[in-house]
Amino acid sequence: MTPFLDALRQRLGEAGLLIGGDLSAYESDWRKRYPGRALAVARPASTAEVAAVLRLCQEHRVPVVPQGGNTGLVGGSTPDDSGGQLVLSLARMKRVRSIDAANASLTAEAGCVLADVQAAAAGAGLLFPLSLAAEGSCTLGGNLATNAGGTQVLRYGNARELCLGLEVVTAAGEVWQGLSGLRKDNTGYDLRDLFIGSEGTLGIITAATMKLYPQPRDRLTALAACASLDDAVALLGLARARAGDALTGFEVMSQASLALLARELPQLQQPLGAAAWTVLLELSDAESVEHARAAFEGLLGAAIEGGCVQDAAIAQSLQQALAFWHLRESIPLAQAQAGLNIKHDISLPVSAVSSFVAEMDAALAAYLPGIAVINFGHLGDGNLHYNVQAPAGVAPAEFLAAHEAAINAKVYDAVQRRGGSISAEHGIGRLKREELGRRKDPVALGLMRAIKKALDPQGLLNPGRLL
Amino acid sequence: MTPFLDALRQRLGEAGLLIGGDLSAYESDWRKRYPGRALAVARPASTAEVAAVLRLCQEHRVPVVPQGGNTGLVGGSTPDDSGGQLVLSLARMKRVRSIDAANASLTAEAGCVLADVQAAAAGAGLLFPLSLAAEGSCTLGGNLATNAGGTQVLRYGNARELCLGLEVVTAAGEVWQGLSGLRKDNTGYDLRDLFIGSEGTLGIITAATMKLYPQPRDRLTALAACASLDDAVALLGLARARAGDALTGFEVMSQASLALLARELPQLQQPLGAAAWTVLLELSDAESVEHARAAFEGLLGAAIEGGCVQDAAIAQSLQQALAFWHLRESIPLAQAQAGLNIKHDISLPVSAVSSFVAEMDAALAAYLPGIAVINFGHLGDGNLHYNVQAPAGVAPAEFLAAHEAAINAKVYDAVQRRGGSISAEHGIGRLKREELGRRKDPVALGLMRAIKKALDPQGLLNPGRLL
Repeated sequence: MTPFLDALRQRLGEAGLLIGGDLSAYESDWRKRYPGRALAVARPASTAEVAAVLRLCQEHRVPVVPQGGNTGLVGGSTPDDSGGQLVLSLARMKRVRSIDAANASLTAEAGCVLADVQAAAAGAGLLFPLSLAAEGSCTLGGNLATNAGGTQVLRYGNARELCLGLEVVTAAGEVWQGLSGLRKDNTGYDLRDLFIGSEGTLGIITAATMKLYPQPRDRLTALAACASLDDAVALLGLARARAGDALTGFEVMSQASLALLARELPQLQQPLGAAAWTVLLELSDAESVEHARAAFEGLLGAAIEGGCVQDAAIAQSLQQALAFWHLRESIPLAQAQAGLNIKHDISLPVSAVSSFVAEMDAALAAYLPGIAVINFGHLGDGNLHYNVQAPAGVAPAEFLAAHEAAINAKVYDAVQRRGGSISAEHGIGRLKREELGRRKDPVALGLMRAIKKALDPQGLLNPGRLL
Repeated sequence: MTPFLDALRQRLGEAGLLIGGDLSAYESDWRKRYPGRALAVARPASTAEVAAVLRLCQEHRVPVVPQGGNTGLVGGSTPDDSGGQLVLSLARMKRVRSIDAANASLTAEAGCVLADVQAAAAGAGLLFPLSLAAEGSCTLGGNLATNAGGTQVLRYGNARELCLGLEVVTAAGEVWQGLSGLRKDNTGYDLRDLFIGSEGTLGIITAATMKLYPQPRDRLTALAACASLDDAVALLGLARARAGDALTGFEVMSQASLALLARELPQLQQPLGAAAWTVLLELSDAESVEHARAAFEGLLGAAIEGGCVQDAAIAQSLQQALAFWHLRESIPLAQAQAGLNIKHDISLPVSAVSSFVAEMDAALAAYLPGIAVINFGHLGDGNLHYNVQAPAGVAPAEFLAAHEAAINAKVYDAVQRRGGSISAEHGIGRLKREELGRRKDPVALGLMRAIKKALDPQGLLNPGRLL
């Protein structure tokens, strides 16, 4: 490999190539689930340098693993343990290239941290709505490569829907200049959306033009207690009909999720009593917080009258509004404290969520009495984090070793029967690659393989991921 | 061709195959710009029949031209004059298969007329927002194959953004079952968006699952007179900031457009005096028409005070609101009455629209004194219909013959310099295929050709279109 590494060093300089030493930050994900060994870490500072790296990889047939903030959950951004894969970190490409306020768009490089993109938009008086737990360290390129979701999808869509254009380096080391601030452009195949969500297997995203939105005047949250998931779905319909696009959040938390939170993080106040399902609603109001409060009062009053809500609390201050969100966002931390669990990032048609949960809760209880389902998520998008924990007294590691495969099969079977997805927002990576091969429509898999072969004939881009 | 046609007839029956007789409705577009001659017209009644047609076409190497409502403007859906291409009409596949109100989605077949999709959604108390001039005869499949735009893009997006899933027959005659009511699904490459906008060159869309929205409680329109396009862009920013997502329409009409309207359709009342630019605004309100009126009064008051609006009129009734829209939608008819013209369906970053128009108006006036630019469109999306008519006294046909190529070059050069698109919402078809080859990023063209070859290796799907 010396000629390859020499050529790389010559092109990238000392700062652009790490060989030897402690590369662990690049070789393993933050949860240490997918440790590997890198041939080296390339850290290009420009699109031209990324293109040069890709050309050298082609020439020397070296596989490339692109890496952003390395915050993924499915093993998409770390090398395997062969020691033969080059990690291509986009971390040095972190510039916000431009903001066009009149066009409500922003162009930034792939390595730009999501929170920095949000801050740049806010600095121009506008909103970049993509928001997720890892926003302090995940990067725009990774968000696009995995089509990240998050908490604002109900109103603003996934990363895909927020993107207007891309700059991409192909497997052959050519640069596609597809940055665009256009809302409408029907000049050929939608290459942009093909690269988005392809997890670095078709090309390397180096920059993107993203949509910005007006900042809402005010945001307000409320909690609502529902007796069943069907009631929560009815509340969603009511909220959409009454609030329209002002409804920017609709999250559910099961009773068990909030009980876990009370045990693990007792300092967090829970304003409503124990309900079967607690819904967090958010309104983003273009007028005023009073207008949002009045809208909430009308909506929740109607819902209580109609019977789909038992009790409700509207945040009385911005601080309380954030505290409601904090409840929802702390569930993963409470789960981590409670020990390993089996995670499922699934989506279903909203109309199928209730029957899925009823069937699966019963099936798991029958399979292993005492099993704990921690179920929460973005009901407005049909996206549940349906996580399963060991019964009390059973060691989590043993539980996973003994039951993970069987429980995954049960969950994914029930999802598949309802036309759902086994990966709503986390992607496939290494974790779900085999599962995808078994469950995805075979015609779709055939099309995907044909596209992969057409765009990366040598199979060097993030091999062993996704396909 | 007899064995091929015999096999087709056996599979499709008498009702499913037209040979000989008057096929002109299938062989020419409605404007009679792209007349051709078909080998035959296949009219399959089911997805399985479409798949059978495609398998026979593969076997006998017969090119296929898919056709929906045949309302396109770029020659994408009629056969060439070789007499060797099979027209595949989806007109018999027109069922709305299902509506899922709780999931706010609808599944319909490709041949379903757009107005029928809208009506089915309304019947379930929901809104299908795609709306365009041809909605009484264009079909859902054609809307998706060309990624149709229309008047509601500002808020709801193009056909692409409204689609959740597709059923597609591949070139090999396999069926990809990608119908989905999912809002989030990160399981592999985005095949859906690859087929959307591919103009029938990668596969045949046979059905789609589309998003539905709550019906707005009320809609209200207003007209605003602006002294310049810069003022109109400033008004757009103000309207977005104040009204948020309630702003569902923002159209501009130049003074020359409204003057043409006054000449050709004098029965249409024009409430405002002659302004350099007249903006049509639409608010969709989740609360009430009074709330919308108050929002308009606040917005337009602020705009007049700020100087970007000279005069304004808010519709006083639903009838007047529709009359305002009717003004905007009648411009193409007035143009047709006035004779042939050179049409440009372009898009630009909103921030670049004003400089483009200033440069191009001056360039065209210098090129040919007396030339008339009829400029109108969806300013909120940066999409202009920048159409050019002959000077008074010059016969339109002669004008086109002498000047079309030169004027197109001027317009597209100026668009390209600003990162704009030569086809915002009408597609490429036959009309702009060569232009695309000259102007599209060569790396993008290479990627498109590689994908075409991977998915349609024999090149039988809508050949000579797009690529």
